This record gives sequence, C-alpha cells and structure tokens, in this order.
Amino acid sequence: MKSIKVGLLGIGTVGAGTFNVLKRNQEEIARRAGRSIEIVMVADLDVARAKEVTGGTCEVVSDGNLVVANPDVDVVIELIGGYGVAKDLVLKAIANGKHIVTANKALLAAHGDEIFKAAQEKSVMVAYEAAVAGGIPIIKALREGLTANRIEWIAGIINGTTNFILSEMRDKGLDFDTVLKEAQRLGYAEADPTFDIEGVDAAHKATLMSAIAFGIPVQFDKAHIEGITKLEAVDIRYAEQLGYRIKLLGIAKRTPKGIELRVHPTLIPSKRLIANVEGPMNAVLVQGDAVGATLYYGKGAGSEPTASAVIADLVDIARLAEAAPEHRVPYLAFQPNAMTDTPILPISEVTSSYYLRMHVADKLGVLADVTSILAESSISIDAMLQKEPSLGETQTDIIILTHQTQEKNVEVAIGKIEQLPTVLGKVTKLRLEHLS
Amino acid sequence: MKSIKVGLLGIGTVGAGTFNVLKRNQEEIARRAGRSIEIVMVADLDVARAKEVTGGTCEVVSDGNLVVANPDVDVVIELIGGYGVAKDLVLKAIANGKHIVTANKALLAAHGDEIFKAAQEKSVMVAYEAAVAGGIPIIKALREGLTANRIEWIAGIINGTTNFILSEMRDKGLDFDTVLKEAQRLGYAEADPTFDIEGVDAAHKATLMSAIAFGIPVQFDKAHIEGITKLEAVDIRYAEQLGYRIKLLGIAKRTPKGIELRVHPTLIPSKRLIANVEGPMNAVLVQGDAVGATLYYGKGAGSEPTASAVIADLVDIARLAEAAPEHRVPYLAFQPNAMTDTPILPISEVTSSYYLRMHVADKLGVLADVTSILAESSISIDAMLQKEPSLGETQTDIIILTHQTQEKNVEVAIGKIEQLPTVLGKVTKLRLEHLS
Repeated sequence: MKSIKVGLLGIGTVGAGTFNVLKRNQEEIARRAGRSIEIVMVADLDVARAKEVTGGTCEVVSDGNLVVANPDVDVVIELIGGYGVAKDLVLKAIANGKHIVTANKALLAAHGDEIFKAAQEKSVMVAYEAAVAGGIPIIKALREGLTANRIEWIAGIINGTTNFILSEMRDKGLDFDTVLKEAQRLGYAEADPTFDIEGVDAAHKATLMSAIAFGIPVQFDKAHIEGITKLEAVDIRYAEQLGYRIKLLGIAKRTPKGIELRVHPTLIPSKRLIANVEGPMNAVLVQGDAVGATLYYGKGAGSEPTASAVIADLVDIARLAEAAPEHRVPYLAFQPNAMTDTPILPISEVTSSYYLRMHVADKLGVLADVTSILAESSISIDAMLQKEPSLGETQTDIIILTHQTQEKNVEVAIGKIEQLPTVLGKVTKLRLEHLS
Repeated sequence: MKSIKVGLLGIGTVGAGTFNVLKRNQEEIARRAGRSIEIVMVADLDVARAKEVTGGTCEVVSDGNLVVANPDVDVVIELIGGYGVAKDLVLKAIANGKHIVTANKALLAAHGDEIFKAAQEKSVMVAYEAAVAGGIPIIKALREGLTANRIEWIAGIINGTTNFILSEMRDKGLDFDTVLKEAQRLGYAEADPTFDIEGVDAAHKATLMSAIAFGIPVQFDKAHIEGITKLEAVDIRYAEQLGYRIKLLGIAKRTPKGIELRVHPTLIPSKRLIANVEGPMNAVLVQGDAVGATLYYGKGAGSEPTASAVIADLVDIARLAEAAPEHRVPYLAFQPNAMTDTPILPISEVTSSYYLRMHVADKLGVLADVTSILAESSISIDAMLQKEPSLGETQTDIIILTHQTQEKNVEVAIGKIEQLPTVLGKVTKLRLEHLS
C-alpha cells in the first residue's frame, strides 16, 4: 500500500517527540501498519528550530495554512494547542478532506461537537488519544475495549502537574506554594500553571471521557471545576490519619437523574491502587457493569509518551483511511445518530461523601451541636477525628467524614455550623469517594 | 446496516455471561457498533441448560458442527476450551468463511500460527481479547494502543488463581496447600488446578503477548514455566522483610540475543504498583521505548469480565467484517509478512536478579565461603539477610539478593554452594525483577 503522508502543525515538545519516534521506530511501525507513515510538511512559527529538528527530511513552513491546503497531505496532526489558530486550521483541514490527529483537549472539550460534525460531513477521521492521559491508551479502551459495558463511572488522575504537587505535599509535608515552585523548577509545572492547578486541564479531559463513556455531547461549560490551590497541608495530614489520600480526580458518573461531571480534590481510601499513583503519573479507573473496575496507568504527559498516542492514532488512520466511514470507530464512541441528551447535573445535585474540617473552641457541647445540625440535614457520620488541643490552646480541630449525601444538604448544614458561636471561621469541605 | 449474526460454541460460565451481557446491554452496544449483534445459534452438550440460559431466543443444538456450517452465522464464538474439538471446529468455521472470537489461550498459544494462517487465506478475522487477562483490554492496548513503540518488556500477573493464593499466603501466613483448598472452596481455583498453579495458563497468555509485542510466531513450547506449588511460606516472609512481594509473573522481554519468555514466582519491590495487585485481580505492565511504563489492571477471569472482552471483539468484527482485510488489525499485531524469527532464549541464557535462601550451620566462615563462590561466578550481592539462630538452635538461614546476572552463572554457583559442608540441603532460588 502507498505510504500515508502527514502534515504536522507545531513541532514543539510533543511535535518533536512525534517526529523522533516515527523516525526511530519507522520500520517497526510500518510492520504493524502495513504501510509507511511519512511526515512530509511541518509548520511552526519557529522555522529555524523546526528545520533543526527535521534535519531537511521534509518541507518546513511558518504558515499552517500551507499544510492544511497541501494536496499531498493525507493526515494533519494538530499540536498547536488552544482554541484560536488551532480550531481554524483543523476546520480548514477537514474541509480539505484531511484526517485529523490532535492532542488538543481544550479545543475538543469546547468545540468537539462542531469539529466532529464537520468531520462527519467530509467523512474524515478525528483521532485524539493524546488528548487524555498522554501515552495511556484510555480513549481506545473506552471507545473500543469496553464496548460491551454500560459504563457506570470514570475517576481519573488526569493531570500530572497537580498529582506531582499533591504527592510532594504529602511526602514532605510542604505547603502548596513551595511545592509549586519545585514543580516549575523540575518542569512538571508551566510558568503559568493556572490551567493545571485550577483543574481546567483535568476538566477538559474529564469532559471528553464523559462524552465517550455515556454517549452525550461534549459539554465543558457544564463541568464543575475546583483546583488544588486552596488545599491546605493540614487536610492532607488529617486525611492520612483517617486512612485516605487526597488526589485531584476528574469524575464522570452516570446517575438516574443525569451525569455528574466534576473535577476537585478528593479523598480516596489509601489502600486503593489509584491512591498509590504518585508523582506526575496518570491513572484512570473505569467502572463498567460487565467488566467491573479496570485501571489504566502511565505517563500522562511528556514528549515521547504523548507522541506514542499521536502515532497510535496515525496507525489507526493508516489502516482505515481508505475504508468506508461505517468501518471506523465513531468519533465519540457512540454513532453520531445514537447520542443522548442525558443532562449533566449541577454540583448541588451531586452525591458524594464529604470531609468536613472545622476549627472550634474546646468547649462542652460543640460536638453535640455540630452532629445535631448534620442529623437535621439527614447526613450521617462515617468517622470522626477530634484533636486534643495543643498545650495552652483552647481551640482545636474537628474532622468529620460523612456517608453519602447530596451536596446541597451539606451546603445547608455547613451554613448552620458556621453560625455556631463555638465554630471559628469557615468549614473546610472536601469530597470523598470510595471508588468501590 | 444489517445485524451481525453470531453462533456460540459452549454456553458455560463465560458463554452465559456473553449471552446475558449482550442481551442486557444490547441497545447500548448497538449504539456503539452501529448495528445489532444477535446470537442466532448455540451449541452445547448440555442442551437443557443451554435452553434454560437462552430462554428460547435462539436455536440450541448439541453438535457444534451445525453452528460452524450454519450459513446464517457470520461470527463463531468458541468457548469450549482445550485443543481437540475446539481446534477442529475453529478450523471448520474458518474454512466456511466465519470470523472467530475465542477466549481459548491454550489453543492459540499452541496452534495459533496454523489458525491465523488459515484465517488469512479465508480473509476472516480471529479476535482473542478474552484469551489474556479477561476483561482488561490488553490485547487491544498491545496491538493498537502502543503501535508507536518498540516494546521492551511485558510483565504480567495474568493468572487470578495463583495471585489469590499468593495474596492469602502472605496476608495470613498460611502455607500453599491450605490456601489452595480455600481458593477451591471460593471458586478461585478449579477442582483440578494444575494448569493454574503450575504456571501453564500464565505461560499460554505470556506466549500470546510475546508474539504480539515482538512480531514473532507463537511458540508455547519454548516458554520456561515454573508454578507456585514449590513456593514456601518462609520465602514470602523473608521477601517481605527485604522489601519485596512474590508474584507469579509472565515475562516476555526483548534482549539483544533473543526473547526471554518465562513464567515463575518473582520477587518485585513492594512499592511498585503491580506488587500491590492482590487477590484474584490481574495486571499487565508494559514497557515501551516511547511511552515508558503503562499498566493495565482489572478482573482476569469470571463470567461477565470475560464476556466484556468477547463482546468487544464482536463489536470490532461488526465494524470491520465488511471492510477489506488490509483495513483490519493484523492477527498478531504485525503484518503476517513482517514477522521475524528472533529466537526465544533457553532459561540458562536469561538475565535476572536472584533471591537465594540457604540453610546453614551457624559456624564461622560460612558466609565467607558462600560469598567467595558467588564472586567466582561474577555474581555481585545486592542485599543480605542473616537470621540469628533461634534459642538453642545451631542452624540458621542466609538470604542473599544478587544483582543482575545470567541464570547459568547462578546455577554453577548454587552447585558449588550446595557442596559446602556447612550448607544444609538445597539452596532455594527465586528470580527477582525490579521492573523499573
């Protein structure tokens, strides 16, 4: 078969990784794909650097429009990122009949439906394994490996930066700001880490997974997003004492009323395998009704791990580019005409267990007041930790783990607890998931 | 599109699971596959039970020949097991132009090359996700998800029975025979558990993974196989004290001289995620040159977990049955004309670290004798544990962990150590892998 000709938009970290792995493993990849895969044109604003990476093996231009318009190009790899130029070029490439491979979770989470619709009209493939959890083939697992299942929920550590920070905070007892600087020094966090630490990146990925798990459109605007910037070291310690670790989880869950789609720091039992995923590693836990729980673990970012996913998509396209569209895997796992409009629930309607920490005056009756407020809201207590006040102190912390309840009940109870004269300041609320 | 019509050979545990999941999730599965999947004929010797399971929804016969000859059947699912009837029916079904889905690792590990060749000639698919690690989509990950990579090694806990037994031996300090009875009572071990506990089942699976990872033919007869029947509780305890857990691993590893293909109890560092896979769960760790390490975890057996894999294969076939053969994933990941004959190495040529336990007389100079023998064989010592003799005892245990060396060097050294008058009885040798 004739080779597949690829145009590459953006040859930064992941682009260079893709170029290098394709070159290094070209023989092994062709033995699998049954045809060779060849990068014929690269667009990057930094033409000099692009030429250095590609070493004269292909044409290098600064204008991505030349790539998407190139009649020799079968597949366009988009590694620019963001919504602006990337979206424009992807849509132009599709209009020109090119298949797309992209690692751009932000673009797909926000504009996926528009892009997939355009692609369907032109009968081209859009592959995005690299958009979620880097080199871990989680999109393939969800779209193809678990097709027998009614997926019940997905919970993933899908942002390496925040997992590195949380691991270091726990290991070394350091606070968030200190560890963030360390992460930036080591290259695990960007100079502007907002998207990572505020949970936006994880929410992009969770949104994509929610769509392919449940057959709903991508709806990033409905995701509930909390990052780790407000997480205090003391809560990591208390959680540890109670047998839990705190991870930033992206959660997508089917309930009778609708879909929960949320990203937030979450207590999970320390003995769970996923609780032991440390440093910048990613892991996604999927609960299916037939298979039970399966877990997928690996590097969620980095040059060659992400390139591994980009190239796996290229191989899939190489196999199926000339097959009729009905022989391909649907963009969002379910056939376009078989999507449902199951609603995504507001956070107040979400069901979870909770960790509540309150700073209280060490007086008789405080605990009775707090527990009776919880009882009024029908919130039952799973575990409690009351610290003895330090020597000479008259204040202490009470930590309560609740059984499952709705978020709105917890909000009502917290409002009342904060009114108690013996409760000092705000109540810290974290969600807790048993993942069992 | 018209529905895919399936004939089922064997409706025992997995067959009934397949029938039930297909029925329960038929709408969700059809929304993914773009067509419905329908079991039209079932063959089982126990016709009465088969009729009970299928409840009159399809034809039930006792003779599998009727299924493979049925012109209405597009796909045959083989869940009979073993080499005899199963092989005959699979080859007949292929000859009749049926696609095959099978969970039969024994058949494919021993006769895969013959079956895949026949299938290629008839342009039919042979899918076998359920043959390795039950519901975990590890075959898909290796054949499709990691196609960018030169796979360096695979190490898997791929037999739930033995992992359950090892977990219980460690947790409860019990010996092998006691735990085996417990496993049989709980249904984790069969009445005749030989294939599981002797490592044969794991070797079938490791053989299949070696083929698709490295592009070599399936060569079960070249696998080195050791089970867990000779494993003593004392070695599990000593390993624990040294920071290791013992797991039955199936290992396939690429080396410059050839492929290592081996199943044996293995010490692995306790802090590795895979060391914490307990009970009947399975997990496969794959090291690729681009992606690094990825891990796949889930239930490796059972009715619906295995059915999950069988049905995922059916959906793949439903998508690609009418596509040209070159649009399909190759049987063994690499194109049939792109296989290599890289040799599988004999165990003496394998490189590993080792755990050596010897029972010695508590006399001056024993350790010096042992270490000088190891030095003669160029085996360097990584860690050592010498137990104080119990009160009133004059004998004790010495445990030595070695750095990496070739198995033949260790064999020579053990021969010499066993000649020492101060060393009592045989030296216990276990392999140790750092998996890093």
